[in-house]
Amino acid sequence: MTDFTLHIPADVPKEMRAEYEKNYRAITCNSGNLMLFAGDQKVEHLNDDFYGDGIAEEDIDPEHLFKIASSAKIGVFASQLGLIARYGADYPDVRYMVKMNSKTHLIPTEQRDPMSSQWYDVEQVVEFKENSGLQIMAVGYTVYIGSEFEHEQLQQAAQVIYEAHQYGLVTALWMYPRGKAVKDEKCPHLIAGATGTAACLGTDFVKVNYPKREGEPRPESFKEAIKAAGRTKVVCAGGGSMGVDAFLQQLHDQIHISGAVGNATGRNIHQRPFDEAVRLCNAIYAVTVEGADVATAMKIYHG
Amino acid sequence: MTDFTLHIPADVPKEMRAEYEKNYRAITCNSGNLMLFAGDQKVEHLNDDFYGDGIAEEDIDPEHLFKIASSAKIGVFASQLGLIARYGADYPDVRYMVKMNSKTHLIPTEQRDPMSSQWYDVEQVVEFKENSGLQIMAVGYTVYIGSEFEHEQLQQAAQVIYEAHQYGLVTALWMYPRGKAVKDEKCPHLIAGATGTAACLGTDFVKVNYPKREGEPRPESFKEAIKAAGRTKVVCAGGGSMGVDAFLQQLHDQIHISGAVGNATGRNIHQRPFDEAVRLCNAIYAVTVEGADVATAMKIYHG
Amino acid sequence: MTDFTLHIPADVPKEMRAEYEKNYRAITCNSGNLMLFAGDQKVEHLNDDFYGDGIAEEDIDPEHLFKIASSAKIGVFASQLGLIARYGADYPDVRYMVKMNSKTHLIPTEQRDPMSSQWYDVEQVVEFKENSGLQIMAVGYTVYIGSEFEHEQLQQAAQVIYEAHQYGLVTALWMYPRGKAVKDEKCPHLIAGATGTAACLGTDFVKVNYPKREGEPRPESFKEAIKAAGRTKVVCAGGGSMGVDAFLQQLHDQIHISGAVGNATGRNIHQRPFDEAVRLCNAIYAVTVEGADVATAMKIYHG
Amino acid sequence: MTDFTLHIPADVPKEMRAEYEKNYRAITCNSGNLMLFAGDQKVEHLNDDFYGDGIAEEDIDPEHLFKIASSAKIGVFASQLGLIARYGADYPDVRYMVKMNSKTHLIPTEQRDPMSSQWYDVEQVVEFKENSGLQIMAVGYTVYIGSEFEHEQLQQAAQVIYEAHQYGLVTALWMYPRGKAVKDEKCPHLIAGATGTAACLGTDFVKVNYPKREGEPRPESFKEAIKAAGRTKVVCAGGGSMGVDAFLQQLHDQIHISGAVGNATGRNIHQRPFDEAVRLCNAIYAVTVEGADVATAMKIYHG
Amino acid sequence: MTDFTLHIPADVPKEMRAEYEKNYRAITCNSGNLMLFAGDQKVEHLNDDFYGDGIAEEDIDPEHLFKIASSAKIGVFASQLGLIARYGADYPDVRYMVKMNSKTHLIPTEQRDPMSSQWYDVEQVVEFKENSGLQIMAVGYTVYIGSEFEHEQLQQAAQVIYEAHQYGLVTALWMYPRGKAVKDEKCPHLIAGATGTAACLGTDFVKVNYPKREGEPRPESFKEAIKAAGRTKVVCAGGGSMGVDAFLQQLHDQIHISGAVGNATGRNIHQRPFDEAVRLCNAIYAVTVEGADVATAMKIYHG
Repeated sequence: MTDFTLHIPADVPKEMRAEYEKNYRAITCNSGNLMLFAGDQKVEHLNDDFYGDGIAEEDIDPEHLFKIASSAKIGVFASQLGLIARYGADYPDVRYMVKMNSKTHLIPTEQRDPMSSQWYDVEQVVEFKENSGLQIMAVGYTVYIGSEFEHEQLQQAAQVIYEAHQYGLVTALWMYPRGKAVKDEKCPHLIAGATGTAACLGTDFVKVNYPKREGEPRPESFKEAIKAAGRTKVVCAGGGSMGVDAFLQQLHDQIHISGAVGNATGRNIHQRPFDEAVRLCNAIYAVTVEGADVATAMKIYHG
Repeated sequence: MTDFTLHIPADVPKEMRAEYEKNYRAITCNSGNLMLFAGDQKVEHLNDDFYGDGIAEEDIDPEHLFKIASSAKIGVFASQLGLIARYGADYPDVRYMVKMNSKTHLIPTEQRDPMSSQWYDVEQVVEFKENSGLQIMAVGYTVYIGSEFEHEQLQQAAQVIYEAHQYGLVTALWMYPRGKAVKDEKCPHLIAGATGTAACLGTDFVKVNYPKREGEPRPESFKEAIKAAGRTKVVCAGGGSMGVDAFLQQLHDQIHISGAVGNATGRNIHQRPFDEAVRLCNAIYAVTVEGADVATAMKIYHG
Repeated sequence: MTDFTLHIPADVPKEMRAEYEKNYRAITCNSGNLMLFAGDQKVEHLNDDFYGDGIAEEDIDPEHLFKIASSAKIGVFASQLGLIARYGADYPDVRYMVKMNSKTHLIPTEQRDPMSSQWYDVEQVVEFKENSGLQIMAVGYTVYIGSEFEHEQLQQAAQVIYEAHQYGLVTALWMYPRGKAVKDEKCPHLIAGATGTAACLGTDFVKVNYPKREGEPRPESFKEAIKAAGRTKVVCAGGGSMGVDAFLQQLHDQIHISGAVGNATGRNIHQRPFDEAVRLCNAIYAVTVEGADVATAMKIYHG
Repeated sequence: MTDFTLHIPADVPKEMRAEYEKNYRAITCNSGNLMLFAGDQKVEHLNDDFYGDGIAEEDIDPEHLFKIASSAKIGVFASQLGLIARYGADYPDVRYMVKMNSKTHLIPTEQRDPMSSQWYDVEQVVEFKENSGLQIMAVGYTVYIGSEFEHEQLQQAAQVIYEAHQYGLVTALWMYPRGKAVKDEKCPHLIAGATGTAACLGTDFVKVNYPKREGEPRPESFKEAIKAAGRTKVVCAGGGSMGVDAFLQQLHDQIHISGAVGNATGRNIHQRPFDEAVRLCNAIYAVTVEGADVATAMKIYHG
Repeated sequence: MTDFTLHIPADVPKEMRAEYEKNYRAITCNSGNLMLFAGDQKVEHLNDDFYGDGIAEEDIDPEHLFKIASSAKIGVFASQLGLIARYGADYPDVRYMVKMNSKTHLIPTEQRDPMSSQWYDVEQVVEFKENSGLQIMAVGYTVYIGSEFEHEQLQQAAQVIYEAHQYGLVTALWMYPRGKAVKDEKCPHLIAGATGTAACLGTDFVKVNYPKREGEPRPESFKEAIKAAGRTKVVCAGGGSMGVDAFLQQLHDQIHISGAVGNATGRNIHQRPFDEAVRLCNAIYAVTVEGADVATAMKIYHG
């Protein structure tokens, strides 16, 4: 896996290609595969993911995310600029991805199609990177295709990616089909449309939900989306609750059967107590970045 | 309380950190706790808070607010730039927070979800500070999460905070869940989502309404919101009418049981005659900033 | 009345304070009181105010307005930049206020809440002032609070005022509660909310409709609005048709009982033949600026 | 007619007054009267005006418009920048007015009120003028008063006019009352409101539809609109199909009875074969610019 | 066909005319005719055009498009900037047109009229061209006339074209009548309105769907649109599935009967295996650019 081919996109200016490659290799730990620790849910899901039954008590403190990101093996930690600004000085070793837009989940799709606006210009992120000295290596943005506001989000996504590349930053899109016009958000063919759209937007990585088709093994159903993305690399959302064993097997399948380059997991990590969260990260990392099999990864998880 | 830890957020540029710390220490009176005298209601509630039964006659004159802010012990006085511009020259000793957006309460939520737009750029506030020589130390902004216009307000809030920090100004968000999609505006779990969102927006302080859950003591119900905010500090809205004794007890509980750093009170102060308003401020200040117990504070109130 | 106190607002930069004071004293004729001749109705009311039964034939010619403004005693003449540009060179002695936004009255509130957009930047007004050499001393802007577009208009108003003050221009707001959410546009308490909002927007003058409460003398009903405005000065719209005697008495009451600083009258002036219009202006001016009683003013009116 | 008075509007900067006067005199052929050949219908009416029964076959070729504009006596030819750019180099002798906005007629008013957006900044038009060397002397813009989007169009119109005057360009507004709130688009009083609004927007010329009131001669009905416009000059849309004799008589009446300064005609000209179109232009020009009577003009038309 | 007349539009500045002519001649292969290989469907149709029954398996890989564009005879390959950036460095020989806007087909017209927003400024495209060294020679943009958002798209189209011409880039518009107000998207008269609108927007090329009128040969029905476009050249969308023979005959008719200058084909090419796709391109190219008859072209197709 260390022999991955890095195609630097042509919108990265010549003088920023070394910076881009440095960032790309850093967040993929020189493997081309991506273990993305997703920490943007305090806005996206409000406090639902951080407090309640089955959630470790310490998860309510935002610093929990940073402690994990700092202690565990991860590729990159994604969160909002404001939260990174609040804790980053104490966690300078973490590699950060700034999530550029976020919305709450309060408004149901039946009331209004989803719209999530860009909070910052890329120039501000770069300014923040320089002022803070933090390892800001990437930016992320969510697009809801099929929303009545799709056109605004496609435009913002295109701008975020183009501008990020001007500064050598790596990019990831969260691509979710959603809106009154979308009947089946997990339809493999539709998700392949989402990853193809992401490729046309020029992103380096795209995060999607795990596709699902009645009567077909999911790793098979996922293949269309990965092929449709071409050189844009696909990572899969961590998804709902399941045993660690099953989770790691699923991840292993996504990489070795479907062709994904990794995962983007949040809840499944940070809802656990610190030690367990770190061990789970390390297990995920082993599968994603180090090419471990599930049994090896489970040993890491069990410490 | 004087030994509070100040974590300067990493989006404050190095050359502005001293300015930021100076402002932060000034408005918290070097305690880390915040007694915010809120004076933005002439727009938010029109004249309802300033004229009518049970309201001191002098409250209708906007100068009443400035007289109190100048004579009483407070941390910071929040109002709109225009009003500060009109009276500030006569009250140069007051520490000001410019409230960056405001709306009237004329349109009910059933008619249209709330939207409150940013009136000024932060650059203009800084220009105003320099031109006027006034002690503008902070800016404030209201966000209605759950509103159909949430995405615009989240974007504006992120910009206000980021830009304010570039100039070393301290920030506060008024975070209110409101809109047709919001069933219970005081739900503790929802308010914890609001404070968590505020943390992700990078604000220094966040003002919320006092949470309420059937069958639970309110100081307990408030804890989730304070923990979810992490290093972003929480102050509680002053709320409705109650006796001074009960009000001060509530404030003491919010600080010592819930973990809030203070309060943001308007009506409960300025609807009283000048002398009483000053004494109430001083009592609130004693509890918030000086660590007084309720009995001591009541003595101050009674003069 | 010549001993009025002028509180120069703190958002006027030091180097523009002399200019601001010069403009303020000029349009109030060194009295602090304001006789505003309103000439923006060709857009606001289309041709309804200028042609028809009971309207002087010459009123249809826009130059009628300029002739009156030039020959009569007035404080300031308010109209749109385009109209001022068309006639101004021939009437260089007039003091002008540029009305920055206007809308027609074609769309009823039941169809859509009112929205009136800013036509020019303040910078353009200043450029116009310099290019034309005209006495542009002030700008005006209309806000409909209670409209679903209130947030856009509050934002524009705040900007117009702030920017005008940067150049030493004086400002006036037309504040009208209007929209599907507004039940009684003349409610004294609501209009007091409007003047209070105007104060928070930082305007020097605010024009409102004359409040009305069942069973209360109108001069009494008006007091709340004037007190709520504080140092922002209130002028009253000229209102509907009534005898000159009654009109002047009403104006005298507004100033001497309610505490207003004058009036903003359009139709009641320009719908009269030139000579009479001039004499009425002079009578209004006598009451407003020169402290005349109604009998004296009536003599002026009768020539 | 050659002794017309030119009031250069005061928003034209001193250094551009000669340029403005040159343009004004050029498009009015030194008469003050305007023969405007309107060629913006390929967007406004799609191909309806250019192909079909009773329309000369050659009219489908856009060059037909340029051939007429170049060979006939006209004041100015109005069309979109893109079309002018495509043919202008071959027709450098034509005086051009750039129509700054256009919309198709596909959406009926019952579905949505009309909105037509500005395609270019005035700065771009000036840049185009300089790059192309074409005689761009004026700009035009359409406003639909009474539309729910009136506020956007009033704002754009004000900007187009103000900016055009900065560069010495002459301006024309197409003013049409239209929208669900408009019951009678040809009501003389309403059209007078439209021309008055145009005057307040500061335009040099305004084009309106010919007013019509049951039981009144139309030249009489038109007078109100012309008087309400003051120094802003009114031209009348060419209107529907009628005999040339009647058309010229109507034009003569509009000028000599109503007080208009000319006409803006498109279809009635370009739907004819080239030779006839040229002769009709020349006849119109004779009436409009040369003060001819109808009989003389008819002789010109008949060659 | 090599003797075509090139009318350089007058909005191309003098110093960019050589660049414009170079680009125009390059993408038309010095013939004036255009073989446009359309590759923007990964957004416009999501994965529907790239995976499924009757589609070559290799089509799911975005690189398939680039392989064809590089190996076959084509005029220009149109796709989104992001996709070009991802593969362009390996296919530097291809002539590219950057498609400036795109939308998915998820939202049906009954739910909401189509809106497709501009993703990039032309300046960014030029910057990309310079940074990448790729042969970016043209830009494309889609307009939906008849949509409720038509005004925004007309404005963006006008800007894209004007700005592109400033840099010597050639332009193409995709013009589609669509929206609740459009009853028959293929009506020849309506499509002629679309091409006429494109001409007024100043575009060099316009792509439309093949018109269809009951009881009339389609090549005849197409003539109105081509004539209405004047010097703006028309290419026809490749359309649905049909035999290659019929497809080439249709193309030949469009050029030699209707007067089109070529075609814009996507699916009909890339859904075939690489070798066949290349041969079909070459056959299309022979008809379009080399003046071949259908029999000759079929021989090329059959290799």
